[in-house]
Amino acid sequence: MSIILITGGARSGKSRHAEERVLAMPGRPVYIATAQALDDEMRARIAAHQARRDDRWGDHPAPLDLVSALDVTDGAGPRLVDCLTLWLTNLLFAERDLAAEGEALCAALVRQKSPIVLVTNEVGFGIVPENRLARQFRDAAGRLAQDVGAVADEVVLVVAGQPLRIK
Amino acid sequence: MSIILITGGARSGKSRHAEERVLAMPGRPVYIATAQALDDEMRARIAAHQARRDDRWGDHPAPLDLVSALDVTDGAGPRLVDCLTLWLTNLLFAERDLAAEGEALCAALVRQKSPIVLVTNEVGFGIVPENRLARQFRDAAGRLAQDVGAVADEVVLVVAGQPLRIK
Amino acid sequence: MSIILITGGARSGKSRHAEERVLAMPGRPVYIATAQALDDEMRARIAAHQARRDDRWGDHPAPLDLVSALDVTDGAGPRLVDCLTLWLTNLLFAERDLAAEGEALCAALVRQKSPIVLVTNEVGFGIVPENRLARQFRDAAGRLAQDVGAVADEVVLVVAGQPLRIK
Repeated sequence: MSIILITGGARSGKSRHAEERVLAMPGRPVYIATAQALDDEMRARIAAHQARRDDRWGDHPAPLDLVSALDVTDGAGPRLVDCLTLWLTNLLFAERDLAAEGEALCAALVRQKSPIVLVTNEVGFGIVPENRLARQFRDAAGRLAQDVGAVADEVVLVVAGQPLRIK
Repeated sequence: MSIILITGGARSGKSRHAEERVLAMPGRPVYIATAQALDDEMRARIAAHQARRDDRWGDHPAPLDLVSALDVTDGAGPRLVDCLTLWLTNLLFAERDLAAEGEALCAALVRQKSPIVLVTNEVGFGIVPENRLARQFRDAAGRLAQDVGAVADEVVLVVAGQPLRIK
Repeated sequence: MSIILITGGARSGKSRHAEERVLAMPGRPVYIATAQALDDEMRARIAAHQARRDDRWGDHPAPLDLVSALDVTDGAGPRLVDCLTLWLTNLLFAERDLAAEGEALCAALVRQKSPIVLVTNEVGFGIVPENRLARQFRDAAGRLAQDVGAVADEVVLVVAGQPLRIK
């Protein structure tokens, strides 16, 4: 079993790299999507990601209940979780306890039998946001990445489409 | 021939590192500037960059027509393109087709005979911007960096003035 | 003597890594805090950082006069400066000359006898801020990181809690 965390900026090629990693593993891959098609822009992004994948993939949407999605899909092929920051956004709007959800995710990760590749976004390399909710989100995303990074076997930073292994 | 992409955050030392790389190559270097002096702040930035360079450099401004600037200056010394994100900004305001321009640039890069060092800015490591144009720009900059990174022989991330080779 | 610069995004695990580095050095560590508890959010952050440290640490607040804090605490155990970007923020509000203060800091760093670990934040990987003061701050933070990086024996980028040595 292995846990791989892929991080990077927006449009850095994180998802593409994550898909390549999953496709190189044995077994039918499962795509665990946290995105919700709430507006046209998100619909277009989701469609662009789907267009790149094909029938080889199983699909498993999990905008909120990521832990049960992992447990349900465990034991067969590798899973791709894309992405943790959208999952956090969904949790924030659903007023869930972000710290408790992060802990439950890490506990679920370490009990998985099939491999998991998780994508996250670096969101904390800018000026401190003036918006309090944005600061909360940024803090939660940073903490989650640290916690998943701590249980991961491998952490990869993707810049300009190039993967750089940092753990 | 070689294509080197230098990326990093604002004031990370990208331009300085790029200049050092170009000056270490044989031949008279050409500086292909995409910046336009539209306001006092830009004028000051351009002047600061110019003050660091000297008579060794040839200058070739290219706020929009980067492809022809590359083709015209090819065959002699190395070229420094500083920077791709300002070029994208200019294209966006001129209402050019960003995807088509990016493709044309990559096609031009691979046919060059003299070396080229290109500077770009990482702009996607923050909170998702509320402004739609900013999101478009950020997406375009990320995609362009991926595309140029794919044809580059070398990709370097500069942090705190320190270059880190990632390809 | 050694100077170590630890950089990274918000909530990346920079401070934790910096504390581990300092605790691994001989002598009683001194924590040189630049943070000021001006509002509840800052008070909570400071309390969270303090809760992680214990009686092993000496404390030395230095919201503005970092150079004298370094000189006064020199000659015994290692020092942790957390962090340079808050120090810059304080200098900016106190209307000090940021370039002169940065030069004085670098001059002070190279004359220190006891080791120093400095934490800074990457703030320049996002879209150009619309706010002029934010742009000034971002430029000053980038330049300071470059200058400290130049005199540092080691520069480390922390991503998702994982340290990556870049110098």
